[in-house]
Amino acid sequence: MSKFIRNNKKEIFVKHILDMQQQIIVTVEEIESGEKFIKDNWVREEGGGGLTCILNNGKVFEKAGVNTSQVHGKLNESMQAYFKTEYQDFFACGLSLVMHPLSPMVPTVHANYRYFELYDEQGKVVSQWFGGGSDLTPHYLFEEDAAHFHQVQKDICDSFDTDFYPKYKKACDQYFYNHHRKEARGIGGIFFDYLKPTSQVSSSFLLEFVTALSSSFTASYLPIVLKRKNLHYNEEQKKWQEIRRGRYVEFNLIHDKGTLFGLKTNGRIESIFMSLPKTVRWEYDHKPEPNSEEDKLVQVLKTPKDWI
Amino acid sequence: MSKFIRNNKKEIFVKHILDMQQQIIVTVEEIESGEKFIKDNWVREEGGGGLTCILNNGKVFEKAGVNTSQVHGKLNESMQAYFKTEYQDFFACGLSLVMHPLSPMVPTVHANYRYFELYDEQGKVVSQWFGGGSDLTPHYLFEEDAAHFHQVQKDICDSFDTDFYPKYKKACDQYFYNHHRKEARGIGGIFFDYLKPTSQVSSSFLLEFVTALSSSFTASYLPIVLKRKNLHYNEEQKKWQEIRRGRYVEFNLIHDKGTLFGLKTNGRIESIFMSLPKTVRWEYDHKPEPNSEEDKLVQVLKTPKDWI
Repeated sequence: MSKFIRNNKKEIFVKHILDMQQQIIVTVEEIESGEKFIKDNWVREEGGGGLTCILNNGKVFEKAGVNTSQVHGKLNESMQAYFKTEYQDFFACGLSLVMHPLSPMVPTVHANYRYFELYDEQGKVVSQWFGGGSDLTPHYLFEEDAAHFHQVQKDICDSFDTDFYPKYKKACDQYFYNHHRKEARGIGGIFFDYLKPTSQVSSSFLLEFVTALSSSFTASYLPIVLKRKNLHYNEEQKKWQEIRRGRYVEFNLIHDKGTLFGLKTNGRIESIFMSLPKTVRWEYDHKPEPNSEEDKLVQVLKTPKDWI
Repeated sequence: MSKFIRNNKKEIFVKHILDMQQQIIVTVEEIESGEKFIKDNWVREEGGGGLTCILNNGKVFEKAGVNTSQVHGKLNESMQAYFKTEYQDFFACGLSLVMHPLSPMVPTVHANYRYFELYDEQGKVVSQWFGGGSDLTPHYLFEEDAAHFHQVQKDICDSFDTDFYPKYKKACDQYFYNHHRKEARGIGGIFFDYLKPTSQVSSSFLLEFVTALSSSFTASYLPIVLKRKNLHYNEEQKKWQEIRRGRYVEFNLIHDKGTLFGLKTNGRIESIFMSLPKTVRWEYDHKPEPNSEEDKLVQVLKTPKDWI
């Protein structure tokens, strides 16, 4: 019997993301052996706020952000249109993280887990859903790392529903795609949105699923960091990382719905833009040497691949 | 009597922008004393093409692009909706340039001068207009440079119509504005679009105006480059330049209609993105020291100023 039955989803999920945030921060600080996150509590004028935690100039991470937010209030018209709803009162909370390593041999990672509730005028929940996922963006491709990252997420998915992994893996490949470059942002992961309870699927089941997934974040990513963080790299490889980061910025500023939504709804800019890498480079018409390691990555990004 | 009367606007303007492109390239190469532009001719599948000229890693300019394009064909539906027209056949040409100096003491400049024609099914011109302008983005503020840049453009404007400068200066301040940061991209210049002939204003008059303006580009910008290029700067000032360039990227990828339009209409990515600086930096929640030179710039960007 689910431990979540008869509990309030909102309170449970908020507590979970705050716990996860602390746990991830502690784990990253251990890897950094000395470098610490700065922590910014912020308040949203219209209701709620968040905790933005940033590690800057670490030994392993050039820039890492691990944020939580819990906001509530009334949807403005553009948000109502976006969600196709007549209702105004909402609550939203989420954990959002992006880690940009110093070394080009360590992949960048992004994860986000969020929960949303809409209320009628009497304050009754009329709609609720989960969204989220996690994806990996390597600058050099280690196929075993990609397979590991996917395997951890597949294992969690499979323990809930064997349809989940193939479905959400595909959704991730479709979402994190730089259409103007005709290439994926990275090697994917999983992505899901508007996961709503139905007559078949309870909200407790969904809560357990998203909780389990987010809890597996460190298992999916940190072994890769530990394996690659001491690899040697040269200046040219660092430049390549910065060029690829340019693509990351392009995705986030041109295509990412979360970023644009945050900008349009007067979100906290510095918390939204914590996703942008510290140092980035745009070289005119840069093309990697055919059959180089850099080219090998680009070829994989042109066509999404099954990693398991 | 106008030298343009009885001439074909399209041919004259195309010749002019190609001449201007060469002239600007030669002038920049003289300043660079040795560094050369690379030149890429490209063909647009649907009709026309362009010449993209890029200077990379110069002594004065870290990255400079001076592009011309002449494209024609049929507007797709989204372009028709954008221009609010029933007509499909179009011709468009333009000169577009962005120069990102190496030194943070030298301002970045952008200029664009374009001409557009729409045709009915018999090939008769049913609509024609000019657009363009030029704006300056300093990283450190030298008020006399801002005044010089505006003065050159005001002088040209005034010689055609004394209403032009105040009107187009204001339009520039409004257009090159990072709404999500609540600050201007730079210290402005002039910006105009849909300049169409009327019963009062001939197309020859407009052609002369835009031709004169674009011809004044070197006079508006290069004296500033020569004056500031040998100023000393330190690593912190270079970092500040890279942080400000982050705002430049944000504007171009989030707000700039030309960039987004290019992406949506399958334009040549590398020519569109020549506007992006080579090295860019996003520091979390960076704020300049109060009353520092950096702060002085930010304060000016918060409120558009009259420079003349």
